[in-house]
Amino acid sequence: MDIEPAASDHKKAGLFARGWSWLKALPEKLKAKVVEVANKVRKIGQDDPRRIAHALKVGLALTLVSLIYYYRPLYDGFGISGMWAVLTVVVVFEFSVGATLGKGLNRGFATLLAGALGVGAHYLSSLCGNKGEPIVLGLSVFLLAAASTFSRFIPGIKKRYDYGVVIFILTFSLVSVSGYRVDKIIELAHQRLSTIVIGSLICVIISFCIMPVWAGEDLHNLVAQNLEKLATFLEGFGGEFFKNLDDGEIVVVSGSGKSLADYLKNSEGETGSVSKSDKSFLQKYKSILTSKATEDSLANFARWEPGHGRFKFRHPWKQYLNIAGLARQCAYLLEALNGYINTEIQILPEFQRKIQDVCVTMSSESGKALMELSAAIKAMTHPSLADLHVENCKNAARDLKTTLKTALLENSDLLGVIPSATVASLLVDVVVCTEKIAESVHELAKLAHFKTVEPTVTPEKSQLLHRGTVNPLAETDSPEVVITITAGPSEALPEGANPRAPVTGKHVHGSVNICD
Amino acid sequence: MDIEPAASDHKKAGLFARGWSWLKALPEKLKAKVVEVANKVRKIGQDDPRRIAHALKVGLALTLVSLIYYYRPLYDGFGISGMWAVLTVVVVFEFSVGATLGKGLNRGFATLLAGALGVGAHYLSSLCGNKGEPIVLGLSVFLLAAASTFSRFIPGIKKRYDYGVVIFILTFSLVSVSGYRVDKIIELAHQRLSTIVIGSLICVIISFCIMPVWAGEDLHNLVAQNLEKLATFLEGFGGEFFKNLDDGEIVVVSGSGKSLADYLKNSEGETGSVSKSDKSFLQKYKSILTSKATEDSLANFARWEPGHGRFKFRHPWKQYLNIAGLARQCAYLLEALNGYINTEIQILPEFQRKIQDVCVTMSSESGKALMELSAAIKAMTHPSLADLHVENCKNAARDLKTTLKTALLENSDLLGVIPSATVASLLVDVVVCTEKIAESVHELAKLAHFKTVEPTVTPEKSQLLHRGTVNPLAETDSPEVVITITAGPSEALPEGANPRAPVTGKHVHGSVNICD
Repeated sequence: MDIEPAASDHKKAGLFARGWSWLKALPEKLKAKVVEVANKVRKIGQDDPRRIAHALKVGLALTLVSLIYYYRPLYDGFGISGMWAVLTVVVVFEFSVGATLGKGLNRGFATLLAGALGVGAHYLSSLCGNKGEPIVLGLSVFLLAAASTFSRFIPGIKKRYDYGVVIFILTFSLVSVSGYRVDKIIELAHQRLSTIVIGSLICVIISFCIMPVWAGEDLHNLVAQNLEKLATFLEGFGGEFFKNLDDGEIVVVSGSGKSLADYLKNSEGETGSVSKSDKSFLQKYKSILTSKATEDSLANFARWEPGHGRFKFRHPWKQYLNIAGLARQCAYLLEALNGYINTEIQILPEFQRKIQDVCVTMSSESGKALMELSAAIKAMTHPSLADLHVENCKNAARDLKTTLKTALLENSDLLGVIPSATVASLLVDVVVCTEKIAESVHELAKLAHFKTVEPTVTPEKSQLLHRGTVNPLAETDSPEVVITITAGPSEALPEGANPRAPVTGKHVHGSVNICD
Repeated sequence: MDIEPAASDHKKAGLFARGWSWLKALPEKLKAKVVEVANKVRKIGQDDPRRIAHALKVGLALTLVSLIYYYRPLYDGFGISGMWAVLTVVVVFEFSVGATLGKGLNRGFATLLAGALGVGAHYLSSLCGNKGEPIVLGLSVFLLAAASTFSRFIPGIKKRYDYGVVIFILTFSLVSVSGYRVDKIIELAHQRLSTIVIGSLICVIISFCIMPVWAGEDLHNLVAQNLEKLATFLEGFGGEFFKNLDDGEIVVVSGSGKSLADYLKNSEGETGSVSKSDKSFLQKYKSILTSKATEDSLANFARWEPGHGRFKFRHPWKQYLNIAGLARQCAYLLEALNGYINTEIQILPEFQRKIQDVCVTMSSESGKALMELSAAIKAMTHPSLADLHVENCKNAARDLKTTLKTALLENSDLLGVIPSATVASLLVDVVVCTEKIAESVHELAKLAHFKTVEPTVTPEKSQLLHRGTVNPLAETDSPEVVITITAGPSEALPEGANPRAPVTGKHVHGSVNICD
């Protein structure tokens, strides 16, 4: 197929014009791109300024270690091995102290062990004569490399010593094989070890002394934040789901999702459509759904860290993972609940108003409980203030029974009941989950010896505790009523010494099974 | 405080006895420990024999690269730089081809770029005189290291080029700084680059040729397996939840969980307790809840891989992540549903039996649909067989309305209704989710050009398609009825060429909004 010359010319001209306009637009485009990238970079820095500090710290450590090369005395001592120090700094320096320490220790011990084994392999092979030497060396490298590589699939090793195994293979191969040539094998092993130790030390000291980033503290804050995110959703959910009830007529809350309501609504008339505004605070919990990997690695790094600030060396990091796991369970429930905010729901106001109070109480009280638990973790105090709210939401869940009975008997058209009933049912699951989280935080408070605070409760607040036991302390002269909530098995008292205290505690944060 | 001599002797004797018995038990304990570890290791190997192959491949690659040291010609060529090849093999060799290729390419290009920059920095600094040289070099190392380290926080770079940036910092520091001493900087840069290329090539060739592990294939299988796990749960759920209905009386299925039922059951008598046996097949879906990180990294590695087997170079790996995300959404719903298997539920048989059929249909049909989708992904064929089941479960969801209406009107005591209604409601969400998954798999089939199969449906099976369009082909002489389900926008036909086909397709896998 031939193209006509005129058409071809046209095409060429068009191509040139397009090319020219593209070229003219290029500086503009480039500028826009640069501005976009710059904004992105600035945002990353603003989100967590420690990232900028980390970048500068790595630069500093590398410049420091370069001294080994710059100054002749150091260079003469270590020779070419000085580069291992540079290599170590680049590879070992991580964001948090725990990760840096973990990698540094892994690298140091793996080098020591592999160096010793390498020297041993070299010695052994030298006994086998000139012909046997390369065979024995090759065989030992093959076997140890294969075995070590396989060991990286074992979860326990993978989790904490993965990097150490890599360095073990590396050093063993280098020392045993290069020993065949260099003939100064002990010296090589010694140089490699000492430069690695120097590199690791520089990393650890800098990450430790200059604006340290503690993985343990990050984990602590992350878990507290996750509880807070759950609380934010739950405190807002009641209002969001029941917001259209004040009209006193059948309303349809419109949204984009499709759910049971779509199947239910066809026969009934739609009397109105209220557009739902985007509530971003209701979406925060979603990050919890996929935060497991972050939590696991933080807990893993935290175990390498020495005591710092408010955290002792053997802080119960594992318990944070338990709380985080329960928080994720709760987030799954919120994911199911969230579907009922976004869907078109046929609301029957008579029924809804009946269960509204109970549902709003369940939602907001478990939200408040989680908020108090989060605050208690943040302040590292006993979470006794949360017990009040846990008890309240448990009571609300019990009240649901009575409410449902009266509410259901009055309704004959019960199709519209289902979505609200489902929400109520899911909220009960949330209450159960909140209770488990509260227990888990109490356990953490006990393990980590959180401070006990005696909460000062004002008279209005004491009404909330409608089934709790109020003990006005006769000894106190202050005009305020002080309620001491002895939550959980109290540590200060030997078991059974004060039979009343544990019972009161049991009552406040005990299991749901005790239905009174 | 003095301890009496007799007591002290007793204590000593006790200590010795304990020590002796501990020593005597030691070999037994050690043996048990060794056996335990050996079993664990064997299980890891049996779970995925490719792990053993991988370990052997790494051993082989390391032994091969050691040849550079063993044989003098190679050694004379590269000198001490030969160890970079060993280092490269240890660090670059990963489990899958994609990961190895990605790391190798990252390492190669980063070394090339950093080497060039390092030579440049060295040249620049040499212009600044003897005093200025270390200052300029130190400053350039500091600035580039800090900037590169910061760039690792940018998600796009973190995801694909993290390793490259590390190697960039490393090589730049080594070349620019060691250039200050070695004086043969170009040669050093060249040696480093060529040994790294040799090491990377050995890794890539071995991982490519000997029992290759493809990340893309793993992702493909993982996504298909995840759908299968969802299907297994859904196919079993109906039977599990409704299993005690045959007695025809009020029964309580006991379990360990606490839920709404615990709050509801107090007033009603418990007539019986059926112990729930542990059903592990119902727990398989739980792995999907936390598989996001695995999927993301597999998709990331898969993008480095060339075409292999049934997968072309630009296979739509991203679409697998979409399907996996929807599968996880579905798994969140199953997590909520699962709570209703394990809880003590007050079952009202009259009501339950009414909705049982619909719920079992919804559950099993969405299970079957997911199973067909999984099979279609595995076989890489168009998922037309699944459309039948998707349509069936959508119809069941619509039928729920009628069923609920009649069922609810006959019941006056409706407390026991709530758990079943919640299950029904959640199952509707599952149906919606299944539909989305089906759409997503259709999209994948389109993007990846899956084979179109003409499903041969037997007459019994054709009854299932109670709202589908059956087109007996007049041209076919075979006694079997062949149903051609033209699902989705058919690619073979130009748009609008056969107006009937797209309409039929729409009907089979169209949106729920079209309520007929």
